[in-house]
Amino acid sequence: MRPSRRQTDQMRDVTIERGVSLKAEGSALISFGATKVLVTASVETSVPGWLRGKGQGWVTAEYGMLPRATGSRNRREATAGKQSGRTQEIQRLIGRSLRAIVDLKALGEAQITLDCDVLEADGGTRTASITGAYVALADAVKWMEARQLTKGPVLRDSVAAVSCGIYRGTPVLDLDYLEDVEAHTDANFVMTGLGKFVEIQGTAEQAPFSRDELDALMGLAEKGIGELSAMQEAALAK
Amino acid sequence: MRPSRRQTDQMRDVTIERGVSLKAEGSALISFGATKVLVTASVETSVPGWLRGKGQGWVTAEYGMLPRATGSRNRREATAGKQSGRTQEIQRLIGRSLRAIVDLKALGEAQITLDCDVLEADGGTRTASITGAYVALADAVKWMEARQLTKGPVLRDSVAAVSCGIYRGTPVLDLDYLEDVEAHTDANFVMTGLGKFVEIQGTAEQAPFSRDELDALMGLAEKGIGELSAMQEAALAK
Amino acid sequence: MRPSRRQTDQMRDVTIERGVSLKAEGSALISFGATKVLVTASVETSVPGWLRGKGQGWVTAEYGMLPRATGSRNRREATAGKQSGRTQEIQRLIGRSLRAIVDLKALGEAQITLDCDVLEADGGTRTASITGAYVALADAVKWMEARQLTKGPVLRDSVAAVSCGIYRGTPVLDLDYLEDVEAHTDANFVMTGLGKFVEIQGTAEQAPFSRDELDALMGLAEKGIGELSAMQEAALAK
Amino acid sequence: MRPSRRQTDQMRDVTIERGVSLKAEGSALISFGATKVLVTASVETSVPGWLRGKGQGWVTAEYGMLPRATGSRNRREATAGKQSGRTQEIQRLIGRSLRAIVDLKALGEAQITLDCDVLEADGGTRTASITGAYVALADAVKWMEARQLTKGPVLRDSVAAVSCGIYRGTPVLDLDYLEDVEAHTDANFVMTGLGKFVEIQGTAEQAPFSRDELDALMGLAEKGIGELSAMQEAALAK
Amino acid sequence: MRPSRRQTDQMRDVTIERGVSLKAEGSALISFGATKVLVTASVETSVPGWLRGKGQGWVTAEYGMLPRATGSRNRREATAGKQSGRTQEIQRLIGRSLRAIVDLKALGEAQITLDCDVLEADGGTRTASITGAYVALADAVKWMEARQLTKGPVLRDSVAAVSCGIYRGTPVLDLDYLEDVEAHTDANFVMTGLGKFVEIQGTAEQAPFSRDELDALMGLAEKGIGELSAMQEAALAK
Amino acid sequence: MRPSRRQTDQMRDVTIERGVSLKAEGSALISFGATKVLVTASVETSVPGWLRGKGQGWVTAEYGMLPRATGSRNRREATAGKQSGRTQEIQRLIGRSLRAIVDLKALGEAQITLDCDVLEADGGTRTASITGAYVALADAVKWMEARQLTKGPVLRDSVAAVSCGIYRGTPVLDLDYLEDVEAHTDANFVMTGLGKFVEIQGTAEQAPFSRDELDALMGLAEKGIGELSAMQEAALAK
Repeated sequence: MRPSRRQTDQMRDVTIERGVSLKAEGSALISFGATKVLVTASVETSVPGWLRGKGQGWVTAEYGMLPRATGSRNRREATAGKQSGRTQEIQRLIGRSLRAIVDLKALGEAQITLDCDVLEADGGTRTASITGAYVALADAVKWMEARQLTKGPVLRDSVAAVSCGIYRGTPVLDLDYLEDVEAHTDANFVMTGLGKFVEIQGTAEQAPFSRDELDALMGLAEKGIGELSAMQEAALAK
Repeated sequence: MRPSRRQTDQMRDVTIERGVSLKAEGSALISFGATKVLVTASVETSVPGWLRGKGQGWVTAEYGMLPRATGSRNRREATAGKQSGRTQEIQRLIGRSLRAIVDLKALGEAQITLDCDVLEADGGTRTASITGAYVALADAVKWMEARQLTKGPVLRDSVAAVSCGIYRGTPVLDLDYLEDVEAHTDANFVMTGLGKFVEIQGTAEQAPFSRDELDALMGLAEKGIGELSAMQEAALAK
Repeated sequence: MRPSRRQTDQMRDVTIERGVSLKAEGSALISFGATKVLVTASVETSVPGWLRGKGQGWVTAEYGMLPRATGSRNRREATAGKQSGRTQEIQRLIGRSLRAIVDLKALGEAQITLDCDVLEADGGTRTASITGAYVALADAVKWMEARQLTKGPVLRDSVAAVSCGIYRGTPVLDLDYLEDVEAHTDANFVMTGLGKFVEIQGTAEQAPFSRDELDALMGLAEKGIGELSAMQEAALAK
Repeated sequence: MRPSRRQTDQMRDVTIERGVSLKAEGSALISFGATKVLVTASVETSVPGWLRGKGQGWVTAEYGMLPRATGSRNRREATAGKQSGRTQEIQRLIGRSLRAIVDLKALGEAQITLDCDVLEADGGTRTASITGAYVALADAVKWMEARQLTKGPVLRDSVAAVSCGIYRGTPVLDLDYLEDVEAHTDANFVMTGLGKFVEIQGTAEQAPFSRDELDALMGLAEKGIGELSAMQEAALAK
Repeated sequence: MRPSRRQTDQMRDVTIERGVSLKAEGSALISFGATKVLVTASVETSVPGWLRGKGQGWVTAEYGMLPRATGSRNRREATAGKQSGRTQEIQRLIGRSLRAIVDLKALGEAQITLDCDVLEADGGTRTASITGAYVALADAVKWMEARQLTKGPVLRDSVAAVSCGIYRGTPVLDLDYLEDVEAHTDANFVMTGLGKFVEIQGTAEQAPFSRDELDALMGLAEKGIGELSAMQEAALAK
Repeated sequence: MRPSRRQTDQMRDVTIERGVSLKAEGSALISFGATKVLVTASVETSVPGWLRGKGQGWVTAEYGMLPRATGSRNRREATAGKQSGRTQEIQRLIGRSLRAIVDLKALGEAQITLDCDVLEADGGTRTASITGAYVALADAVKWMEARQLTKGPVLRDSVAAVSCGIYRGTPVLDLDYLEDVEAHTDANFVMTGLGKFVEIQGTAEQAPFSRDELDALMGLAEKGIGELSAMQEAALAK
C-alpha cells in the first residue's frame, strides 16, 4: 500500500491556476498534491547573442526552490553563490522539454523565459514544473499573438511530465516524497498531448531494473500524462 | 492626488495570512496592496560558530525576489552568482529589526531564520517583509514554547515597518511603486507595538529635506505602524 | 548511409588500455573511434563528511575535457571559474552509474574518485567515460583487496554505456559527432554485464519520438553493451 | 564620562589634508581622531552603460579597509572573493550622499569615482569617508572646470556626516570605537552645509529608542556637521 | 648520488612526439622522464580586445594538471572555482617565454593559445611545458604559413627550458620530484636555441645561495638547454 | 640619460618610517621615489591547518594596490571578485623572500602576516614591499620577544630587494615607471644583508639577454641592496 493510500496508477490531486502573476505575460500555479510550483513566462523581444540574426526565437527555463519548501531549510543558492548541479540539470530538462513542442522560427526573434519556483516540495517538482510551464507558455504565446508578434503557429503540441517508480517492488505512478526516498527505480517521462516521447530519464537508485519493469513504468506514464494533458487543456479553455 | 487615489495618510489594503507553509515552524503571506511577500520562519537547534557556547540564540533573515515579481524580468541572483548590494542591505535590516524585540538569551542556543521571498513587487517590499516576519517569528516562538525549547519569554514587543515619502511636495504614507519612483524623499520606519523606534532610514533621492519634513513623515509613520501592529495582533489572535 | 560507413548496428572500434597512469590505483585509456578518454581511479581512506561513521564508502566521478579536444578550442572551466551545467550533469551520471553496481558497505569507509578526462572528443564522451571508468574502478578494487582494505565483494556486476539515436530516420548504434549533431533523437543507455538497465536518458532533439522508435534504440543498445561488456572482461583478464 | 574624556557634544580632533595623491584629480586624507581615511576622486570621461546618451554624468563611491586598520587583522576582501554586505552598504551610502548635492547634468557625460580607503579605524569610518569625499570631489570638479569639461555649476551645496549615539544613557556626538561597541542606539546623519538632511540612519542596537532621544541626537548632529562644514570650507580655501 | 642514479649534469630521458592531437593546428606530447605533458596549439583569427586594430597578434598559454597526475589526488581547479596562484604563475611564464621568440607583427591579427596539460607529474612540469610548447607552436606557425596567414617569418629563434638546483650540496641538472622536494635552491632557466636568456627564476627554498652557486646552475642549464634545442630541432625535422 | 636624470647605478630617494600603524605589531611606510607602500605585520598565535602540531610557525604576505595608486584608476580586486595573477605572483614572492631569512621553528606556533598595500605606484612596488616588509617583520619579532613568545632568535639575516633593467641599451639600477615600461629586460633581485641571493627573476620583455648583461644587472643589484640593507639597519636602530 502506498503511504498516501493511492492506487498504483493513481495521480495525486492536481490543480492548475492560470494568470496568478500580475506582471508576467503568462503564469500558472500548479500543485501535484502537496507540491506547489509557481511558473511565470516572460517575453523578451531579443534573443541570446549566439542566436542573433538567425530569424528564430528561443525558449529557456530557470528553476529555483524557496529555502523552506522542504522539511528542513536548504541554503539559498543566491547565498551559496551558485546553482547546484541538480538545479542546472532540472532547468536544462524543462527548457528542452518545452522547445520540443515549439516552432522557434514562428516565434520570431523573441525569447520566452519560464521561471519555475517551488513554493512547497513533496516530490515531483520537475514534472510539475514542466506541466505548469506549458500552461504559462501557452498564455504567453496568446499574449504575443494578440500583439501580432508571432510569425505563425508557435505551439505544435502540448507537453506534460510525470514520474513513476518501483516502490516496494510495485510500479507506481506519480511518486511523492516518501515514495521517492525509498523507490529502487525512479523514472521521469515527458510526453506530448499526442502521446509521443520528448524525454525519458530512468535511474536505478539501488538495483538495476529490467526491460519489463521499464515497460510497466512507461504504461503508467502514458496514463498519467493523458490525464495531465486533459487538465492542461481544460485550464486553458477557461 | 495619489495615483491610487488614497488619502495622504492612508495605507494600502493589508492582509496577513498565517500558517501558509506546510513545513515551516512559522509562516505568513503578507500583502501591502499589490506587493506580496511569503515569509517562513525556520527553527534550527544550533547557532552560528561565533555564538557557540555563549548560551544565547540568534535571529537572522534572508531576502529574495522571484525574477518576475517586477514589470520586467530581473536576473535570478543564484544565476548571477551573488546577492546584490540592495538584497544584502535589506536582509541585514530585517534581521536587525527583529533582533531588537527578541530576548536572545531566552531563545537558548537556537537560531530562527526568516526567509522573505517577494512574489509580487509594487513598492514597500522591505517594510512588508518586516511586518510579515514578525508574525512568522511569533508563530515559530509558539512552536518552540510548545516543545519547551525556550528559557523564558522571547518576544519583548512586536515590530512593524512602513515607508513614507514626499510625493509631489506632500508627505504621504506607504509609498507604492509609482510613488516611490517619483518621490523626492523616501524614509523607512521600523517601530515597535509600544511606539518606540527600532530603525529610521531617510534618504533624499534628489533634494535634501528639512527637519519639518522629517517630522511630518514621522507622524505618518506612527499612524501607519499603529494600524499594522493592530493587524498583526489580530492575525495572531485567530 | 552513415558518415563513417558503419552498419546501423555497428560500434566504432573500441580499445581499452589498462594501467596507463603511474600513480593512480586504477586507470584506463579508452577510445570509441576518435573519442579518447583517460580515466583514473583514486582511493582515499576517508569519506565525505555526511557519510562519516556510517560504515560505508562512496564512489564519485569528475569529468573534464581538454580545451582542444574539440574542433575549435573551448574555454577551460578552471578559467571560467565554474563547471558548466553539462559537465555537472555528466559527472553526476557517471557517479550514479558506477554506484549502481557497487556494494558501498563492502567498500568500508573509503572513497573512490573516478576522474574522466577527455583527450579527444568525437561524440560519446560520456558513454566512453562510464565504460572506461568501470575498468579503472575494477583495478582500484583489486588494489584494495590486495591490501585487505575491503569488507567483502565490492562489485556486484559490471557496467557499460552506449548512445543510440535516430539518424536520417534510421535507428543507429554508437553515434559519432557528425551523427550526433544531426540526430533527431539521442539516447544514452547504461546497462550491466547481466543485461539490466542502470540508466536510460532519451531526448528528442527536434521531433518527439514514438515507443516503437524507443524500442528499436533499446535493441541496438543491448547489442552494443553486450560487446562492450565482453571487451571490459577481456581487458581485465589480461 | 566618555572614554576619551570629551564633552557630550564635542567632536574628536578633525584634520583634512588636500592633494595627498600624486595621480588623482582630487584627494583628501581625513582623520576623525584615530580614524584615518584616504579618499581619491578619479574623473573618467565615460559613464556606465545604462546612462549612455542621456546627457548626464554619475558620481559613485567604493569603500575599503586595509586588513590591519583594526585591532585584529581582518580578511582582505579581494582574498575572500567578494565585498561584504557591510562594505556594499557603506559605499552605496557614500555615493548617494554625494549625488544629493551634485547637478549630474552639469557634469556632462563624465563619471567621478570616490575611493575611500580606511588606513586606521577607530569608529566613524563612513562619516569620515563622506566628509573627506566631499573635499576630494570639490577638487576634482575644479580640475574639470579648469579644462572646461563641465556644463555649469556642478556642486549645489556641500555635504558632511557624523554619527551620534546614546552611550550609557546619554546622547553623545561623534562616537569612537569604544563608545560604538557599547552604545544602545547609533545614528548616522548626513547633512548639507545649508543644514538640510541628506540621509538619516538610526538603529537601535539593543533597546528601541524614543522620539525624544532621536531629537537629542539630531541636535548634536546639527552642531557637529556645522563644525565639519566649516572645516571643509577652510580646507578648500587654502 | 641522485635518486635516479643520473650524473649531476645528466638530463632525464626526453621524448617529443608531434601531431598527437587530431584537431589542433599544432601539438606535442613531451616527456622529461616520468613527467608527461600534452601541449596543443590553437590558432584563432582574432585577438584579445585590447590588441584589436593594432596590426599584431598574440601568443598566450594555459596550464592545467589532471587531478591524478600526482601521487595523491589534487582537487580539480574547475571544481575549486579558480586557478591557483601557482597555475597562474606558470601559465604567465610559459606565455612570456614563447612571446620572447615570436615576431607578433608577423603573426598578423591572430592569436595562438598553447594549452599545456600535465598527464603525469614528476618534477619539471613547467620546463617540459615550455619545451613542448615551442614544438607545438612551430607546427601551428607552419599550418598558418601553408595558408598564407602570416606576414613574414614568425619565429625569431627557438626556446626551451630546464630546472637546476642544489641537491644535497651539489648543483644538478633537471630536478625530478624527489630532488625538487629536498633541494635547497631551485632555479628555472628559459633560453633560446642561440643561447640567450629569456627568463631566469632562482629561488632559495631554505638557505640563500651565493653567486658561485648561481654560476654553477647556469652552466648546467646551458648544457641541458643545448641538448633540448637539438631534440626540438630533430623532432621538427621529421 | 634616465628620465629622472639619475646615474645608471643610482637608487631613487628611499625613506623608511617605522611604527606608522596604531594597531599592528610592526609596520613601515616605505618610499622608493614616488612609489609608496604601507606595510603592516600582524601576529596571530595560530597557524594554518596544514602546519598545526608541527611545532613551527609561518610567515606569509598579501599585496594590494589602492585603485588610484596609478595614473588611471584600476578596478578594485574586491569588486572584481578575485586577485589577479600578478597580485598572487607578487604576494607569493614577498612571502618566500621573508621566509628565507626566518627560523620558523624559533617562531613557535605563530603566524606573521605582512600586508603590503601600495598607496602610490611608480615602479618597483614589489621590491619596495619586500624591503619595507623586513622592517615591519623585525618590529613584530621584537614585539613577540618582549612577550617571550619566541623560542630563540627568529631572524637569521635581513632581506631587501631591488629591480634592475636594460634601459635604452644600458643597465640601470632601480627602474621607475617610465623606465620599466620601456626596458627590454627587467630583473628583480632579492638578497640578504650578508650578500647572498634569495630570489632572482630576470625576464626578457622583448629581446633575450646575454650572460654578460645579466652579470651587469647583478652587479648593480648588489650595490643597491647594500644601500637598502644599511637603510633598514639605520631605521631599526632609531
